[in-house]
Amino acid sequence: MANNVEITILLDFYGEMLTEKQRDFLSYYYNDDLSLSEIAENEGISRQGVRDAIKRAETLLYDMESKLGFAKKLQDIKDTLGQIMECAESINAYNLDHGLSREINETTVRIKSLALDIIE
Amino acid sequence: MANNVEITILLDFYGEMLTEKQRDFLSYYYNDDLSLSEIAENEGISRQGVRDAIKRAETLLYDMESKLGFAKKLQDIKDTLGQIMECAESINAYNLDHGLSREINETTVRIKSLALDIIE
Repeated sequence: MANNVEITILLDFYGEMLTEKQRDFLSYYYNDDLSLSEIAENEGISRQGVRDAIKRAETLLYDMESKLGFAKKLQDIKDTLGQIMECAESINAYNLDHGLSREINETTVRIKSLALDIIE
Repeated sequence: MANNVEITILLDFYGEMLTEKQRDFLSYYYNDDLSLSEIAENEGISRQGVRDAIKRAETLLYDMESKLGFAKKLQDIKDTLGQIMECAESINAYNLDHGLSREINETTVRIKSLALDIIE
């Protein structure tokens, strides 16, 4: 089957565009680590039926990311925010080392807090 | 019809999920400001056909934003980055006023540049 981490991320982003059943199957398989046979038994359908449904749902997720690219875009934004936090930290360290200004320190803390709000 | 600015934004975000025809019709109507009758004449279909196609495409766009919320999420991120840039500017101004450190100034410039990369 597909890459576990990728599918979990794409399911977070695009899950609402799938049917409830598709979301459930992917979640049983990738998040709860149930086997195809276990899902088939719980749902009262064939193992092949579960496999096909999961494959279809995965294709939809990959197709949406390929068209919309939001998972990649948000990851890029988070990477940039990481760099912004490092900049704020370096100002903070320099400022402390040289005993310069409380105001500057407080503002670097605020920058880091704003960036973290988005990253988390 | 729907809100012009909203549709233009949603078309940017989710346009790739529409058919080429749907994208074209919305773009003629909202970006190029053609009338329904003008589009109908260019496409050789009825005015009502154009109207229905645009309505369906708009519904799809609003439905995707309601389920996925990426337009709102990215706007929130941009607002927060605006606040981060203000923080960097305030450190920069304080630093210049008090003749403190070239290193701090250069780092605030870098923060603003990183934030702008995402906003633009």
